Amino acid sequence: MTNFTALTGRVLAACADIARFTEVEGQITRPFLAPSAGLVHEYLRSWAFRLGLATRLDAVGNLRARLESRVPGAPTLYIGSHLDTVPNAGAFDGVLGVVMGFALVEAVQGRELPFSVEVLGFSEEEGVRFAVPFLGSRALVGSAQAMLSLTDAEGVSVQEAISAFGLRPDSLPDSLPEALADANTLGYLEVHIEQGPVLQDLGASVGVVEAIVGQSRLELAFRGRASHAGTTPMHLRRDALAAAARFMVACEERARQTGGLVATVGVVNVKPGAGNVVPGEVVCSLDLRHARDGVRREALAELLSQAQTFATERQVTLTTTTKLDEAATPMSEPFRALLHRAASDANLIHPDLVSGAGHDAQIMATRMPAAMLFVRSPNGLSHHPDEMVLETDVQDALRVGVRFLELLAQEVQGA
Amino acid sequence: MTNFTALTGRVLAACADIARFTEVEGQITRPFLAPSAGLVHEYLRSWAFRLGLATRLDAVGNLRARLESRVPGAPTLYIGSHLDTVPNAGAFDGVLGVVMGFALVEAVQGRELPFSVEVLGFSEEEGVRFAVPFLGSRALVGSAQAMLSLTDAEGVSVQEAISAFGLRPDSLPDSLPEALADANTLGYLEVHIEQGPVLQDLGASVGVVEAIVGQSRLELAFRGRASHAGTTPMHLRRDALAAAARFMVACEERARQTGGLVATVGVVNVKPGAGNVVPGEVVCSLDLRHARDGVRREALAELLSQAQTFATERQVTLTTTTKLDEAATPMSEPFRALLHRAASDANLIHPDLVSGAGHDAQIMATRMPAAMLFVRSPNGLSHHPDEMVLETDVQDALRVGVRFLELLAQEVQGA
Repeated sequence: MTNFTALTGRVLAACADIARFTEVEGQITRPFLAPSAGLVHEYLRSWAFRLGLATRLDAVGNLRARLESRVPGAPTLYIGSHLDTVPNAGAFDGVLGVVMGFALVEAVQGRELPFSVEVLGFSEEEGVRFAVPFLGSRALVGSAQAMLSLTDAEGVSVQEAISAFGLRPDSLPDSLPEALADANTLGYLEVHIEQGPVLQDLGASVGVVEAIVGQSRLELAFRGRASHAGTTPMHLRRDALAAAARFMVACEERARQTGGLVATVGVVNVKPGAGNVVPGEVVCSLDLRHARDGVRREALAELLSQAQTFATERQVTLTTTTKLDEAATPMSEPFRALLHRAASDANLIHPDLVSGAGHDAQIMATRMPAAMLFVRSPNGLSHHPDEMVLETDVQDALRVGVRFLELLAQEVQGA
Repeated sequence: MTNFTALTGRVLAACADIARFTEVEGQITRPFLAPSAGLVHEYLRSWAFRLGLATRLDAVGNLRARLESRVPGAPTLYIGSHLDTVPNAGAFDGVLGVVMGFALVEAVQGRELPFSVEVLGFSEEEGVRFAVPFLGSRALVGSAQAMLSLTDAEGVSVQEAISAFGLRPDSLPDSLPEALADANTLGYLEVHIEQGPVLQDLGASVGVVEAIVGQSRLELAFRGRASHAGTTPMHLRRDALAAAARFMVACEERARQTGGLVATVGVVNVKPGAGNVVPGEVVCSLDLRHARDGVRREALAELLSQAQTFATERQVTLTTTTKLDEAATPMSEPFRALLHRAASDANLIHPDLVSGAGHDAQIMATRMPAAMLFVRSPNGLSHHPDEMVLETDVQDALRVGVRFLELLAQEVQGA
């Protein structure tokens, strides 16, 4: 039997140890392929060595540690998350999922599994250095070639960064897709902190992700006419902010009425921006997310139509620019069912929930069944030095993970 | 009979001439007691000399030109406006009213009036240099003493500015109130461009000001909690902007429903101000104006109560700071009646309207009957180089002004 208390302690100790590898003293700041990333690799390789796992860095700097099944031709289950961080990050976003992968291998190591397990520590997920996220998982599924020429703030390309890290970028376009070219993959499991308040609100330690939301991001520019706040009567105004404010209210109302929809206006720029001048121009953002693309697109169309009405009523013009339109990613139904059964067997409540943020799992899902287990984020805090997890929640996640592997083994053997 | 065509030409020529006296080449920028103000005084003194008027600069730099009545103990009618400008101003705001004073004196000069006429060219109205408006008229009514120690951007005090202009600040606290201490004043008439679109919308060349609005200016700070736009469901948000947007909508609705009320939110600052972050803090302005203080205060109380409700509903706190609370100034009923009769006699339509901006007339009204005649502002444009007046509108205003003086003379003689 697994000693979950001891294993939980090792998971939390590893997260704390890895937090010390940083580019900025006093913070956790670990961008893609920074020297501190190499120190994380060394640290995890020594854990892999103790477990007898074969490890390697692939061409984009993903750490891959493999527990080989003794069953000839056994398929592979991937378990992982990412090792890079945002600037001044917390200790768990990404790292927890990678460390959980090692801990789960440690828990099942002695058993004869009918599949190999490969733990993945993705080198890049946050999109900080090259302004594009998921470089690690994109490389693994063979969709990163177009990104080799991207450059960071210092003008260094992805290709150059890979070389500078001692890796061979020329092996990237060919070798990595090849690694997944055989269909002998079982799927991908990612454990990640929720980064939101839903599990805390439900009183649950863990949750099963139904889908990763699709996102629309837009910029709306309302243009009316600036005029004197005292001398322009209401009926002769062309107030851009009055139109924009109605739109903001409509966004909140629509999202409140539509289960699972979130709508956010986070940016508002008002010109000329003086207290005694009727606003002539307002530029604002809209961020709209839902697990089902149809729901999101219908809400978006309705909100833009309302915005146009609010503008027209005030002789204000409206220009909209789409900045992002990303489809939702449903998680694998069979893997979700296994996670629910595993949590149920561990006597835990196990709500379904939607991931409002993007994750490597959405990239992996393009090539294999993918699933995510969320761990409660106290106060929903993430991307912040105070980001945390509860020890008991980590233990619950380990119990669910081990049971998931057992159930999956039964399924593979039964098949 | 007055040749109104010729007189209109002289008014417009004088406005154009005075526009050349500026501190900034290529603009009209003439702050309080700047050298260019002295050139305006010289220009107007030569016009006064041709008309045989006695002129002087009082202690705060107001130009005062007097047509003395031959009737012993005759009271004084003041006619004027201001000679200072905002930066990069138009040619008519303020100046038109002073020039109209000279033109009206020219029109009635030969007649035996039962009152003296004193044309006032106030030295300061816009509040640009010392951030407090109406220094010229405040000095005349004896309420400027507290402002002598105010300093401009260069640290020069009002007192020092007066000395530098060659005037005697020590004469200010005593001599000026004295000038009005005798109750022998008939009142004050100010001709001014409307600076708004109301007369144009009504198709009227001139209008009679009922009152100068009272104003409330406030700052509202909504404070909720910033959170992730993707991972925070609607019911767990504390969105400061969602609360503020409802308030903005309520402001527009209340003002549209309340005759004569104008409500403006002109400043909105959103923090942290990222498209994918739920706003944690919004600071916005409110500018509320109405001709009746009761109406304004009732609307303000209701709007602040609504804002509190919108905030509380979203677990957002609300802090409000009052920046200005200035009472409305009704214009003199008898003077307004005379202006209406005069316009009627001149076969003009003569709507009542409210002044949404402040004027010297509101200061003069604290000591004597005061009235204002507004001249149509094409496109409502003011405080802008393209600010204009129509020649026919100026002629209409002159006809009303001359007739006003005739009617006032009849009243004084009849009394």
